[in-house]
Amino acid sequence: MERLPGFRDFYPEPLPHPDVWSADARQFIFNQWRATARSYGFREYDGPPLEPLELFTTKSGTEIVGQLYNFKDKGDREISLRPEMTPTLARMVAAHERNYKKPIKWFAIPQLFRYERQQKGRLREHFQLNADIIGENNPAADAELIALSIDVLRSFGLNAEDFVIRLSSRNAWQDFFTGKGGQPEHSYDFYQVIDKLERETPENSQTKLAALGFSLADVNAFIQAGQPTVELQAILDNLRARGLTDYVKIDYGVIRGLAYYTGVVFEAFDRKGEFRAIAGGGRYDNLVKLLSGGKVNLPALGFGMGDVVLLELLKARGKLPAFTAGVDLFCLVEDESLRPESLALISQARQAGLVVEYCFTPLKSDKQFKRAMELGARFTVKLERPAEGALTARIKHLATRTETVLSPAEVTAHVTRQP
Amino acid sequence: MERLPGFRDFYPEPLPHPDVWSADARQFIFNQWRATARSYGFREYDGPPLEPLELFTTKSGTEIVGQLYNFKDKGDREISLRPEMTPTLARMVAAHERNYKKPIKWFAIPQLFRYERQQKGRLREHFQLNADIIGENNPAADAELIALSIDVLRSFGLNAEDFVIRLSSRNAWQDFFTGKGGQPEHSYDFYQVIDKLERETPENSQTKLAALGFSLADVNAFIQAGQPTVELQAILDNLRARGLTDYVKIDYGVIRGLAYYTGVVFEAFDRKGEFRAIAGGGRYDNLVKLLSGGKVNLPALGFGMGDVVLLELLKARGKLPAFTAGVDLFCLVEDESLRPESLALISQARQAGLVVEYCFTPLKSDKQFKRAMELGARFTVKLERPAEGALTARIKHLATRTETVLSPAEVTAHVTRQP
Repeated sequence: MERLPGFRDFYPEPLPHPDVWSADARQFIFNQWRATARSYGFREYDGPPLEPLELFTTKSGTEIVGQLYNFKDKGDREISLRPEMTPTLARMVAAHERNYKKPIKWFAIPQLFRYERQQKGRLREHFQLNADIIGENNPAADAELIALSIDVLRSFGLNAEDFVIRLSSRNAWQDFFTGKGGQPEHSYDFYQVIDKLERETPENSQTKLAALGFSLADVNAFIQAGQPTVELQAILDNLRARGLTDYVKIDYGVIRGLAYYTGVVFEAFDRKGEFRAIAGGGRYDNLVKLLSGGKVNLPALGFGMGDVVLLELLKARGKLPAFTAGVDLFCLVEDESLRPESLALISQARQAGLVVEYCFTPLKSDKQFKRAMELGARFTVKLERPAEGALTARIKHLATRTETVLSPAEVTAHVTRQP
Repeated sequence: MERLPGFRDFYPEPLPHPDVWSADARQFIFNQWRATARSYGFREYDGPPLEPLELFTTKSGTEIVGQLYNFKDKGDREISLRPEMTPTLARMVAAHERNYKKPIKWFAIPQLFRYERQQKGRLREHFQLNADIIGENNPAADAELIALSIDVLRSFGLNAEDFVIRLSSRNAWQDFFTGKGGQPEHSYDFYQVIDKLERETPENSQTKLAALGFSLADVNAFIQAGQPTVELQAILDNLRARGLTDYVKIDYGVIRGLAYYTGVVFEAFDRKGEFRAIAGGGRYDNLVKLLSGGKVNLPALGFGMGDVVLLELLKARGKLPAFTAGVDLFCLVEDESLRPESLALISQARQAGLVVEYCFTPLKSDKQFKRAMELGARFTVKLERPAEGALTARIKHLATRTETVLSPAEVTAHVTRQP
């Protein structure tokens, strides 16, 4: 039986086949995401992977249904696997925001699902770091969020030569739009054209803009000038204070297609332009109100960073560590009469937090040693019964092949001391 | 909008409402599960939460469909959210087992879904630690798995007064069944009666047993005697060598209802009998063959431990730590002209792995300090501009209220040194 198309199996490394994914790399990415978000004071939350379908259509309109894993459950409820986290966050915040001091700084690492038209290598699920700040209007919050996205990427060893944050603003575009006499009913269509500028021919863009009363030349001049608004300048100053100037540039070519963004928007890209956006986000000050049915009105901003593009980038830049079982100690049982004492030693070392392996069944000495080597163990240990006196433990450091003879009780401390 | 019945929202502590769950406690449980499984040399894997429906009906028969979140996707595939992990594991092992040395020792922490008839507090999803050993017949593997389940529970501070592993064997029951002249076609029904003995009246059990040619008295005598088989004795000896004798007892009252177990079976229970089983597992030597369509034949064994009963038990026994944001350092910005230098300090400390918080907007000193206290920060730091000379950092250890004046560059090391 095969897995479903667009879904992934995660195996321990070394990977058995190019078609499967690394469970170790996934956990490595999650760990870095979590550690950096925490260092910024963000707290973890999560919601159900299944939600009422209405939660997603309220935010995105009914046209999103074609891309969802939605169905009727056995209680006749219209439900869907979550395609994104923000509606769940808004629902959760609206339910209990009074119990949390503002601004709320929360993160989650949800798995998200979209029934995309199938293309080679196109996935129907991915994991995403979501970090959001709720209840803060000050651009200092936008700067904090952007700094977090930068530091998350830096935690993987990526630097300003690897990626850049393209920083833009719906407000700047709104000023341009109004200044040039744009009609409010055209603003959504206008944003759609801007969003697609880089993927469209100039002729097509010009035609569409003209229909809305704009010229491509004006639009391009505005983008080229890249004059930061007061708000964006405050964010740039804030990021400069953190030493992050090299990681960010004003780029009004970014606008983000989604209708609900209201202020600053940004996307992270690899400098070489080889990959899709690594991360993206912005302000969505009206969304909590919309999704809470008007009950709660809080400004908000957030970003998402998926595991798939990030993993591709880390691979391409050689930033993934080698993943192994991380075996600290392999216990060789050569004298079967010492198996009980060996099990005691193994048990003791594991309780001290060491990763300990051994063979379940009697095997020749060289086969056991081979297994220790395959697992990349740091040390082997072998209990020995001397002609007289207490048991001894012969411990070997495999990298240097140095042997030490200790009492069994000293083994754990010895292995812990030597990395 | 409400979340779906039977699903959980996970919030940061302190919890805003008794009806929601702790994201911090969940992560704490996952961390302990992962660390202990790794110390035993188990490697992490994961599969898709959605699988072809057939994967689950092949294992459990079509009667399971009534309990599944199953549906047709937009490509007309019959699919289901996973109700358990073992079929996915078997599918993944069958696909690539040749690339892994036996025995394979793998674990996963999947979220599992069942459309159970709704009852108060009854959940339709939970998380489960799954640990399995594939490709090993020796009872040493059963002992390893049972030892792991014990050490996972011990890692939470639970001990032999809190829980016990009830150890049993399908082989022992098979011997009893055959010895008393049972007919092979009755064996499944017989196991079902044994599985329900503790929940049924003796009269009902007697009636059902009589219909299969057995007497309740014989069955009870067999359970009472609790004579370990050779295989179970080997496991007991192995666990004794690890110092785990107090955590396990032979108890033929446990048999586990599922049809596919083939050898040793076990369940972990709290000693006071207040909760449902904490964990359960056993040998399923024929399942990989069944689920791989006969392609791969490997003996296997595993156990599952859910997060819900475990959390209830940890709460009841006072074994959950207090969860906070874990803020190491709170930066007070009293002089707004020093905000840039404060941001630099914050950024530096976070990069060193400290959890650092501050207020985004200018606030009175006492309000900032109040926020630091609410967050349970270990230290506050405040940059000061002396009449002459370089900036200084005034750092306060909140537990002792001791103040120290340092250079800004020394702050991170100071906070790191003092826990």
